Amino acid sequence: MSADKLSSVSKEVKPESMSLYPLGTAAAPEQELLCIFGTGDLGRSLGQRLLHSGYRVVYGSRRPHSCGPLPQGAQAMSHEAAAQSASLVFLCIHREHYDFLETLAPQLQGKVLVDVSNNLKKNLYPEANAECLQRLIPGAYVVKAFNTLSAWALQNGPSDANRQVYLCGNGAEAKQAVAEVATKLGFAALDRGSLSAAKELEDFPLQLFPEWRMPLYVAVGLTAFIFVYVVIRDVVYAYVEQGEDNSFRIMVSLANKVFPIVSLIMLSLCYLPGVIAGFIQLYRGTKYRRFPDWLDRWMLCRKQLGLVALGFAFLHMVYTLIIPIRYYVIFWGSANTISQIRENRTSVFDTTTAWRSDSYYSMGILGFGLFLLLGITSLPSVSNALSWREFSFIQSKLGYLTVFFCTFHTYLYGWDKFLRTYKWYMPPAYMLSLVLPSVLIVLKLLLLLPCVDRSLTRIRQGWERTDTQDGSEKPLLT
Amino acid sequence: MSADKLSSVSKEVKPESMSLYPLGTAAAPEQELLCIFGTGDLGRSLGQRLLHSGYRVVYGSRRPHSCGPLPQGAQAMSHEAAAQSASLVFLCIHREHYDFLETLAPQLQGKVLVDVSNNLKKNLYPEANAECLQRLIPGAYVVKAFNTLSAWALQNGPSDANRQVYLCGNGAEAKQAVAEVATKLGFAALDRGSLSAAKELEDFPLQLFPEWRMPLYVAVGLTAFIFVYVVIRDVVYAYVEQGEDNSFRIMVSLANKVFPIVSLIMLSLCYLPGVIAGFIQLYRGTKYRRFPDWLDRWMLCRKQLGLVALGFAFLHMVYTLIIPIRYYVIFWGSANTISQIRENRTSVFDTTTAWRSDSYYSMGILGFGLFLLLGITSLPSVSNALSWREFSFIQSKLGYLTVFFCTFHTYLYGWDKFLRTYKWYMPPAYMLSLVLPSVLIVLKLLLLLPCVDRSLTRIRQGWERTDTQDGSEKPLLT
Amino acid sequence: MSADKLSSVSKEVKPESMSLYPLGTAAAPEQELLCIFGTGDLGRSLGQRLLHSGYRVVYGSRRPHSCGPLPQGAQAMSHEAAAQSASLVFLCIHREHYDFLETLAPQLQGKVLVDVSNNLKKNLYPEANAECLQRLIPGAYVVKAFNTLSAWALQNGPSDANRQVYLCGNGAEAKQAVAEVATKLGFAALDRGSLSAAKELEDFPLQLFPEWRMPLYVAVGLTAFIFVYVVIRDVVYAYVEQGEDNSFRIMVSLANKVFPIVSLIMLSLCYLPGVIAGFIQLYRGTKYRRFPDWLDRWMLCRKQLGLVALGFAFLHMVYTLIIPIRYYVIFWGSANTISQIRENRTSVFDTTTAWRSDSYYSMGILGFGLFLLLGITSLPSVSNALSWREFSFIQSKLGYLTVFFCTFHTYLYGWDKFLRTYKWYMPPAYMLSLVLPSVLIVLKLLLLLPCVDRSLTRIRQGWERTDTQDGSEKPLLT
Repeated sequence: MSADKLSSVSKEVKPESMSLYPLGTAAAPEQELLCIFGTGDLGRSLGQRLLHSGYRVVYGSRRPHSCGPLPQGAQAMSHEAAAQSASLVFLCIHREHYDFLETLAPQLQGKVLVDVSNNLKKNLYPEANAECLQRLIPGAYVVKAFNTLSAWALQNGPSDANRQVYLCGNGAEAKQAVAEVATKLGFAALDRGSLSAAKELEDFPLQLFPEWRMPLYVAVGLTAFIFVYVVIRDVVYAYVEQGEDNSFRIMVSLANKVFPIVSLIMLSLCYLPGVIAGFIQLYRGTKYRRFPDWLDRWMLCRKQLGLVALGFAFLHMVYTLIIPIRYYVIFWGSANTISQIRENRTSVFDTTTAWRSDSYYSMGILGFGLFLLLGITSLPSVSNALSWREFSFIQSKLGYLTVFFCTFHTYLYGWDKFLRTYKWYMPPAYMLSLVLPSVLIVLKLLLLLPCVDRSLTRIRQGWERTDTQDGSEKPLLT
Repeated sequence: MSADKLSSVSKEVKPESMSLYPLGTAAAPEQELLCIFGTGDLGRSLGQRLLHSGYRVVYGSRRPHSCGPLPQGAQAMSHEAAAQSASLVFLCIHREHYDFLETLAPQLQGKVLVDVSNNLKKNLYPEANAECLQRLIPGAYVVKAFNTLSAWALQNGPSDANRQVYLCGNGAEAKQAVAEVATKLGFAALDRGSLSAAKELEDFPLQLFPEWRMPLYVAVGLTAFIFVYVVIRDVVYAYVEQGEDNSFRIMVSLANKVFPIVSLIMLSLCYLPGVIAGFIQLYRGTKYRRFPDWLDRWMLCRKQLGLVALGFAFLHMVYTLIIPIRYYVIFWGSANTISQIRENRTSVFDTTTAWRSDSYYSMGILGFGLFLLLGITSLPSVSNALSWREFSFIQSKLGYLTVFFCTFHTYLYGWDKFLRTYKWYMPPAYMLSLVLPSVLIVLKLLLLLPCVDRSLTRIRQGWERTDTQDGSEKPLLT
Repeated sequence: MSADKLSSVSKEVKPESMSLYPLGTAAAPEQELLCIFGTGDLGRSLGQRLLHSGYRVVYGSRRPHSCGPLPQGAQAMSHEAAAQSASLVFLCIHREHYDFLETLAPQLQGKVLVDVSNNLKKNLYPEANAECLQRLIPGAYVVKAFNTLSAWALQNGPSDANRQVYLCGNGAEAKQAVAEVATKLGFAALDRGSLSAAKELEDFPLQLFPEWRMPLYVAVGLTAFIFVYVVIRDVVYAYVEQGEDNSFRIMVSLANKVFPIVSLIMLSLCYLPGVIAGFIQLYRGTKYRRFPDWLDRWMLCRKQLGLVALGFAFLHMVYTLIIPIRYYVIFWGSANTISQIRENRTSVFDTTTAWRSDSYYSMGILGFGLFLLLGITSLPSVSNALSWREFSFIQSKLGYLTVFFCTFHTYLYGWDKFLRTYKWYMPPAYMLSLVLPSVLIVLKLLLLLPCVDRSLTRIRQGWERTDTQDGSEKPLLT
């Protein structure tokens, strides 16, 4: 936000105020001239912003006299003349048009070439655009930059997800020059290393939550399955067998069965790969061999699995809290009291039920509270501030405590109705949700057995079962 | 937090431990001598911190022998002598006193001058303090820095909002030297570019939520208006016409009418400017002309509008959830059951009402859940981590889904009571809140019509209706 | 996350693609050779990652031919040969083995030595490992780095709390070289200054929430005390005096007494030190003398005190919201209605009780909402984005408003039952929680008295009561 504030104010800094600078040692340099190749949308947007930030801009164009409207204050020249006039050239042209640049190699010798291009799809070309450019014009300093910004941000300055200019290139000074332009335009420049990183930078703007995809598919699949299951068991069954129309229960009652079930299963899926990895390491007797691919990919999306599960847990909490204000609940609560009076029944207060009901709620709340804590510590700015020992304490120790609370909460929900109320041979839905977390807890307890734990710890400290390492070098860093 | 930890520990690093350094190639440099002009509060605070961090400090003063108590270990000299003894001079004096510095120009030649001054008001002077200083002493390297910190932070080191030292100046090496001092003092140095950014840096500490002001005014105005409206309609009307005293309803019932109404209106206000901008671009046939000023300013505070709306939505949720534990509700619930018994009435369960009531709650919860997601992704560290495609997916697609859910939630609240229950010709308050979101949804649907959408997309990709651009250069970057 | 994405993709960038680089001016440098001393776990993990990122790696070992399995592609040499072959040497050996490095001083002359070591305990040695190393080999450029990462992160790349490589050292170029390696490995390099910061960096990975310890001890102690208190007063008393078994109330009713009480007390503890500091400054007449140690430490953990209090407040809120769905509450609600019918009693609606009950809830909700806002602004990325004026506005002004709302909420809870219902001479537990906040509010109001406020403001602007400063230099920066 502060960067935002600072840069939004900078719009008001008029270039004329520059003339106040004395011409002494540290005086402001004359307004720098930058060159842009390409007069399309990106070129015009970028030019407008550069002019706005106090630069002079010249466009390189094949037809400098008929290249369409340019931002006020910019002028168009031939590519050759434009390239020679500035030391920094922005390339706002498509990769398909790069070939003609080869003929400009002499003019571009020693210049900084900023490649802002993106492709329409991933892996269209084997080589990154910027690397291709460097190959075409070996004498220039190619810097990949600005391509992760939207045209809107290029024209109007930084906004929420358009604050950072990632750049990469092989020349340190060239990168520094581009970083200075980015800073002056109000962006934060982040160096991503040599030009071999260009491929990642070009793929970045094409990505749409790649690491969220699998968790979301899992969530949608589970939700659909559990929803159909409870609809059959609670609505269809009642309609077929008892002729009752329960369908209104779909909106809240059934939703509030689906959410906690999906949440608990996904929470277990979030901790399961860690346990599996432990068993694989134990079996192999080393930590230096890579895990199977599926496990690697599973482990990389644990955070996302957990956050989706937290979302479902949140919905479960709110759906539970609105129970007493539902028409259905108010009606039957009142009807129940009335029937007690009319039939002159007396119900007796049952302390065990009170204990169970209260423990059930307590476990649920504490589990949700811990879950929320896990979610908060996975915010980037919070996790960056933790040492890894602190982070793993929270995500592992408190994480398993969360799994335990939530599983216990579900067991208390079942209480003594377990394995009793089948309808059409279908067990209650919550029993489905208990399978994975129960397995997880058993496996984790196995890994915590002193003898197993000791082996695993040694393996994770670098020990290998078939180790032939000599003793003198052994006691190295843990 | 980690920076905090690291720096809080640094207090314990005693300067004496320096003597352990060997005098070899990369040995620690001798403790650097820095000069401070000005023995006021800021000068003393800064000096204390510099001494604490292992620097030697000399003060420049007009009366070096009677300048009041200085931090232990510092010494005072005449300005001339002090300036000559160090290569970096902190100026902790008011701008009004800058004039005398002109006489020191020879001594300050080639030195780094750190201007830490702020003004009491914005726009007191046409020129930034640091720029004025550079004009007075053209031979020095003026760097604006440290002015965004409080005197408390200067004395005691970084704390929550005092972690970052923004700096700007025309000399790269001078900035680097100042950045090193800032880092050694425990702060994070952030380069803001050339000295022309000094004005922004000087205005920064004076700002008090500039971009929150308009949204908060709107929120306060709307809250007051809706509050008066519902008080008249629900309390005054009942008192005047029926002689009932409903005033106790103000604290929760009426508050819980005001909050959701204000929230929904502000949520629409957050998405309305985007739709208006679309229509303006369609009308003009170009995206390169600036929007009217009011629209620009409106668009810049969309995020704040949304977050304020989220706050009201949160209050609405909690106020709704406490309904069943209110004395009023418990009393009338019980009284209602009793009267049913006494009058031997039987009420019949109405499935339609159950559907409506449950759908109403479901829409509200889902809308709030999505709204919360929008809020979380607008946290700086989260939005920085998203590509703009991901960010705009969430804020636009999910944002409109939120608007739809919340509007539908309100329509379900009204149900069949629409346009029926007028009191003193005043419609129920929730109907007021439906106007803007309904208009917004209709306008957005218009923009999504295939033909309209196609035109708008072309315009946003740089096409202009009266375009005379030639074809060969056209198919440039999207 | 974005760094994550970018770096996770980088795994797919094959080193072979390097061969595509032209050999021109800005061509990619040949794959750099780095040296690692030590073939233990850390050395092997680091080597694996370096090879993966496109570096060539050579290990220095005492027995290069029998040093155990090395990552594929790396080779082992004698220490002397390895040191001479590379300009950057990673030291992955324990400090106890540093001595032998002295004999390598000639080979290490002018090299960059990266010390990645940690100790098992704090303060094992008077001198930091890196400083010791610099003393042993004065001719090398020692840089402390990578020691804050886990071996897992060194092997597999950055993950949540392992994103940042803190580094420190006396040579700027040496640090730059190490920062480049860190960036290429996917980490964000953060310069922490000269080698005197090594001690902090070595202590960092050993820390487990140092600044959270005191607040958590306080929370645990308070929770235990209040819990025992309410158990005695509500459960034991009822059992002994009336023979009732109330024990089921522990899970929710009593927990929901403990949470708000602990929360309110800790919230006051969070603001009390600021008020005490004000009185000490008033008494001493200066701000330049350090506070007593206990106050300093107290002030440093205010944020943590507040966040723990917020956690308890959150639990209080949810525990309150589930009240109407508890078996106990539903049962007695219904039983109460039934007994009214049977005994033909009529209860009269009491407007005062309605006002009180609703105000009580309103204050609680508003207090919690503000409290949440304080919590959100203490997220690192949010507080970094605020100017200190904005931050102190929120944390101070809104903070005291929160204290006021929450205290008022508790007074409304007590209402007219104050000082009435003693059991075994024990006042109700909520009265205990009112002591500290009431004292805090009174003290704060004293400090806000115009005459006191004026004195304190002058002191905080640098004025001293026994000031002998001369007038001409006085009106310096505020």
